[in-house]
Amino acid sequence: MRSLPPIRNRLFCPGPTPVPAESSLAGLETTLYHRSSEFKAEVLQARKGLQPFFQSPEDPLILTSSGSGAMESAMVNLTGEGDPIIAINGGKFGERWTKLGQAYGCQVKEMRLTWGETVDLDALKTLIQETPGLKAVFVQANETSTGVAHPIQDIADLVHKESDALLVVDAVSALVAHHIPMTDWGIDCLLSGSQKGFGTPAGLAFIALSDRAWGRLSSRRRFYFDLDRERKGQESGTTAWTPATSLIRSLNVSLIKLNDIGVEACDQYHRTAAEACREASATWGLSLFSKSHHSQALTAVALPAEVDGVALLKHAKERYGAMFAGGQDQAKGKIVRIAHLGLFDMFDLLAGLTALEYTLKDFHVIEELGQGVAAAMTRLHQP
Amino acid sequence: MRSLPPIRNRLFCPGPTPVPAESSLAGLETTLYHRSSEFKAEVLQARKGLQPFFQSPEDPLILTSSGSGAMESAMVNLTGEGDPIIAINGGKFGERWTKLGQAYGCQVKEMRLTWGETVDLDALKTLIQETPGLKAVFVQANETSTGVAHPIQDIADLVHKESDALLVVDAVSALVAHHIPMTDWGIDCLLSGSQKGFGTPAGLAFIALSDRAWGRLSSRRRFYFDLDRERKGQESGTTAWTPATSLIRSLNVSLIKLNDIGVEACDQYHRTAAEACREASATWGLSLFSKSHHSQALTAVALPAEVDGVALLKHAKERYGAMFAGGQDQAKGKIVRIAHLGLFDMFDLLAGLTALEYTLKDFHVIEELGQGVAAAMTRLHQP
Repeated sequence: MRSLPPIRNRLFCPGPTPVPAESSLAGLETTLYHRSSEFKAEVLQARKGLQPFFQSPEDPLILTSSGSGAMESAMVNLTGEGDPIIAINGGKFGERWTKLGQAYGCQVKEMRLTWGETVDLDALKTLIQETPGLKAVFVQANETSTGVAHPIQDIADLVHKESDALLVVDAVSALVAHHIPMTDWGIDCLLSGSQKGFGTPAGLAFIALSDRAWGRLSSRRRFYFDLDRERKGQESGTTAWTPATSLIRSLNVSLIKLNDIGVEACDQYHRTAAEACREASATWGLSLFSKSHHSQALTAVALPAEVDGVALLKHAKERYGAMFAGGQDQAKGKIVRIAHLGLFDMFDLLAGLTALEYTLKDFHVIEELGQGVAAAMTRLHQP
Repeated sequence: MRSLPPIRNRLFCPGPTPVPAESSLAGLETTLYHRSSEFKAEVLQARKGLQPFFQSPEDPLILTSSGSGAMESAMVNLTGEGDPIIAINGGKFGERWTKLGQAYGCQVKEMRLTWGETVDLDALKTLIQETPGLKAVFVQANETSTGVAHPIQDIADLVHKESDALLVVDAVSALVAHHIPMTDWGIDCLLSGSQKGFGTPAGLAFIALSDRAWGRLSSRRRFYFDLDRERKGQESGTTAWTPATSLIRSLNVSLIKLNDIGVEACDQYHRTAAEACREASATWGLSLFSKSHHSQALTAVALPAEVDGVALLKHAKERYGAMFAGGQDQAKGKIVRIAHLGLFDMFDLLAGLTALEYTLKDFHVIEELGQGVAAAMTRLHQP
């Protein structure tokens, strides 16, 4: 039957993610002047609150833009015209590194992966060796379009062993769900966004550079995304341009929650949530789109070939209020991406899996209700 | 005496401006996926709601950035390396055009004005005539640092009569307070931001181009601020990058209010508010920092030389909760900028003038209380 009290909309797409009511409410305070000492304190607090998730040498910088703006800032600050770079393209977001590099006139060597697969380290080693003067390697910590989490620590070790290049990591959908200690792993640039693991509305991006990267800023033309300028100002909480003040207020409330949980516990919780989703998928008899290195932020489930994935997701949304993301480009209509990212609790996740199980039943993908959810419940009940 | 119920903080700085509670509350809806049909409808609604204030040939595009991001987008889409441009620099924001043009390698001819003054049209004519191949002229509709509203219609006529150059107008703090019909006046690029006249939190910027400007996009490298890409996507409500969804929700509520009032009535109301502030200033015996062409968005009042403006504004804020902006750079400590911009009512404005009058009395700038406020009240009571 239909739920008589109307079903709430729930987001299970890999960003925007659910925003805690307290965080949203904090954004209602809109009488802060962005150059006041009170607001500068908010900026400093947010930078400090982000730091444990970046484990960066300096507190991350805050930009008013989407995550793609932070990607652009990495490209325009760290590369110059004609620089040889490697872009690891394992999906829609890897492809963005390629396009960004091309747009800014780099010599882009693309390591194109089959969607759902991760980096072959030997092939990457060869590519690095074949690229004299390699300036930087660009990769996603988590390829949101396929549900693959690339092995960043291994990639970092390889890049630094085989070259003098910088390693730039897009962790827009990875941070909080994955523990990525920037300095320990030798990452030279780590970036993220507000609307994923950080449980804040979209509109802010975050970026941190290693000392080595700060020492190698390119002479490329830039203005809005000039990180050196941001760094000088944000030392005292002064952003270069008018920041999204209400979003920074919301961010600070979410960061308090996230830091109370702790970086390691966030990583563990997301790992368990991912396992619960994989167990549900296996119970439904569905395979994963990611072949290995499954993300802790989202699970990409392959649908049987005869099922119209677009219609299935439309049904899940219209009938059960659950908004999953489908496949992009070549995966369109073929997969369901279940996000388990940010400030959601395990009952939210189970509501999503229940909605998906209902939908799979309605589409005759499964016969019996309750089995996949039971598998997930069981996994979530274990320590 | 102190007000026993605590005094509310009130913003009288020229952005961020007060956000109506209904607009803020609309931003609490954070379960919209930015690629859903519901959210695309929000984008289209916002673009349509902005149009009457731009009177642009197409509905304006929405960017997730500050107003400076929209300034950068104008520069990188409409100029190429080495292009001769004119930047009219009448203050802090005019200077930003110069710096942007220089950062992007244009040949910048700067028309530097004494702060508080506006453009000498004969001098501009000469400069245009002396600049063969002039690509574009950049100006502020409203120079927020000085309280001068440059005569855009006259400038547009001159630019088009004397050259083939594009006219780019930064109306970040001008729109809503000033009626600026883009197409009628022959403006080629008009841009603004969410946190000023549009009564929405900071984080969004808006930009519209003339057909002529669309026909002259430069070949310069760009990615995040690629307006052609935004134009193609936003035709159906699809932004190029993840937009600040909650802010667009808030914007739509503010735009409904603003369109209910109407463009002409907004212009008239802000003109009256500005006149009320000028009458109060005159009554206090204070002169204006703007020599002519006074802005309808803010009034810049010069303080007597012996008064420490920084201390005065600190007092206004700490004692009376009223946040005015002081002078920037060369005007630091010398002026008070009273914003009367966006969705504030006349009682809010009078509260601000009362707080300022109390402060002037506390600093012995005036003797008798009530006179300046009475002058403003009287002006606001007239039709």
